Amino acid sequence: MSEFTFTVTKTDGAARTGVVQMPRGVIRTPAFMPVGTAGTVKAMYPDQVKALGADVVLSNTYHLMLRPGADRIARLGGLHAFMNWPYPILTDSGGFQVMSLAQLRKVDETGVTFQSHIDGSTHVLTPERSMEIQGQLGSDIQMQLDECVRLPCSEEEAERAMRLSLRWAERCRIAFGEQPGKAMFGIVQGGAVERLRVESAQGLVAMDLKGYAVGGLAVGEPQEVMLAMIEAVEPHLPKEKPRYLMGVGTPDDIVEAVRRGIDMFDCVLPTRAGRHGTAYTRFGRLNLRNAVHADDPEPLDPESKAPPTNGYSRAYLHHLVRSNEILGMMLLTWSNLAYYQDLMAGLRKAIQEERLSDYIGEVREGWAKGERDGLAEPLADPVPEA
Amino acid sequence: MSEFTFTVTKTDGAARTGVVQMPRGVIRTPAFMPVGTAGTVKAMYPDQVKALGADVVLSNTYHLMLRPGADRIARLGGLHAFMNWPYPILTDSGGFQVMSLAQLRKVDETGVTFQSHIDGSTHVLTPERSMEIQGQLGSDIQMQLDECVRLPCSEEEAERAMRLSLRWAERCRIAFGEQPGKAMFGIVQGGAVERLRVESAQGLVAMDLKGYAVGGLAVGEPQEVMLAMIEAVEPHLPKEKPRYLMGVGTPDDIVEAVRRGIDMFDCVLPTRAGRHGTAYTRFGRLNLRNAVHADDPEPLDPESKAPPTNGYSRAYLHHLVRSNEILGMMLLTWSNLAYYQDLMAGLRKAIQEERLSDYIGEVREGWAKGERDGLAEPLADPVPEA
Repeated sequence: MSEFTFTVTKTDGAARTGVVQMPRGVIRTPAFMPVGTAGTVKAMYPDQVKALGADVVLSNTYHLMLRPGADRIARLGGLHAFMNWPYPILTDSGGFQVMSLAQLRKVDETGVTFQSHIDGSTHVLTPERSMEIQGQLGSDIQMQLDECVRLPCSEEEAERAMRLSLRWAERCRIAFGEQPGKAMFGIVQGGAVERLRVESAQGLVAMDLKGYAVGGLAVGEPQEVMLAMIEAVEPHLPKEKPRYLMGVGTPDDIVEAVRRGIDMFDCVLPTRAGRHGTAYTRFGRLNLRNAVHADDPEPLDPESKAPPTNGYSRAYLHHLVRSNEILGMMLLTWSNLAYYQDLMAGLRKAIQEERLSDYIGEVREGWAKGERDGLAEPLADPVPEA
Repeated sequence: MSEFTFTVTKTDGAARTGVVQMPRGVIRTPAFMPVGTAGTVKAMYPDQVKALGADVVLSNTYHLMLRPGADRIARLGGLHAFMNWPYPILTDSGGFQVMSLAQLRKVDETGVTFQSHIDGSTHVLTPERSMEIQGQLGSDIQMQLDECVRLPCSEEEAERAMRLSLRWAERCRIAFGEQPGKAMFGIVQGGAVERLRVESAQGLVAMDLKGYAVGGLAVGEPQEVMLAMIEAVEPHLPKEKPRYLMGVGTPDDIVEAVRRGIDMFDCVLPTRAGRHGTAYTRFGRLNLRNAVHADDPEPLDPESKAPPTNGYSRAYLHHLVRSNEILGMMLLTWSNLAYYQDLMAGLRKAIQEERLSDYIGEVREGWAKGERDGLAEPLADPVPEA
């Protein structure tokens, strides 16, 4: 298997299961990609990530280009060897983090000039440079450089950034060239404006890329806006190509996006929430920092015998979180990623059995049962990307 | 097996191998006990600790009595269940941390009154209260409350603290009573004064305790002072009881103390050093923060195929340490504890084969080979206890 291929294996409404195949392995879709920002899925050993069912991880070009440097990673044999993850890796373009983390950034037609948030050094990221860096990392799925506007923004601003992103997509396509076994994905932009989203999708599809992402969502807008944009874009994306919703999301966001035909997701939520004492489980979300857990002898998920949740009481997790113990972050990150991967496996199975709606109903019933500590608010709390 | 027993299985000079047996398991001596201060060996899953060959861990009474509270741990089924470690646990008395961490402490004949370093609340620790708390925790080996003076100190001060500690040992013995399958150890004090150390040992031995610790060392004095105190005390300790050198130490300290007849050790060095970027290996000590490692593709120990060191380059570890990534702490802690346990296994094997001196010579040759990054100073850098 030396080619990059995607095969849809089953559909249920707009939802579908599929398989991405490439030399480094197979990605079963719908897939959740744990985020390994700086070349590590924080607080996890790579073999744990794989054992949970993750077929692919995301790593951040912005972070790696600044530290330890893409040229250094290339000299060390590429990112797979560097982080001891021999399976597929998707890298973003660096653009999103330039917008959210870097200082003194300046965008023009050429690309974006910015100062590192680590040491203030000046860097330039162009579409060509982003492809070069992702190539040095050895990434299997490389993302185009785009400009992601903050929502809400004016229609004019969204249109300008979308058109710039389309021109950058074409430059990335040329820079990427032909790389058997690897893929470059384009990114649909257009803010919260359906017309612009459709135009962006059509422009990218005309470039015949290997996959299409929907970007610029999960940046603070209400969930219904996000879902409306997916619904607007989906009919314009080819059925035979994978679709990736960037930076999403909560379990509820994922379920709704899968229902609308999305195949791939990444989000820092399970890992970041785990480091901050929040658990995502079949029975809803728990804040382990809450004093209500101080004397609770039950494990996180009383019905699970799996390692991350079994053997440790909520009282112990509460103690670890309150004491800022690393093991608390390790256990909750592990447990959250386990839940996310279990959810994806459940969604895949349900689509295979053409009972996605029923399955989603059961999932919601579970969440509703578990609001033990008063967390009655919806799960859709947006958390910014790494 | 419902009794606490100790059997010496072999001797080589003053050194010996042995087996402590108790209901929760067997401790193969000489043994290194990883430190689980707040009910967790920091950055390690308990099953990893066990898999490395640790038969027993140490936990700190001072920390646990303040947070989450010994009564709470008792209600939750004891410390073993709480921290998911079903094997033997040794707890200290709390006295050492009161001296080193608590604010506004006041020692009198009754005990010690102090303010928590966490919230400033006032607590009293008496010999009886320390035994009560260690009982609530369910500790298998409980340590007497003692007063540990800082070195150097006047002979008068060392003598006063030693005599107080002897009186407290007697009160602890009575408070502990008869607990089949569990043990209370006394602690030899006396500063750096041989006469006082001998008197302390004789006083404790007269109480016929189940084991004897040597305390108040590894608190900043030169290694030769520590070794001289061990040599002074050892002839006065019964051969048929385990001997525990508290808070020690570097690999070199351990080797020298084993040679002089010590059976048990605990130290935060491998775990704390691991969290701060320092690796202990067969080939000496490495500071992974050092820029010399930034491009080094070799693993920590090129001759080892074991999981903690295999698969990750020094360059990657350098990157993780520089980026303050949790995985760096996890990998280096794991690797350091693996090295410590391997060293203990090597010492036990060498004693069994009556070739301890040769083995120690080989170990030193290994350390000498590995001073790759200019760490030519001796390994005996004292690190204060948790």
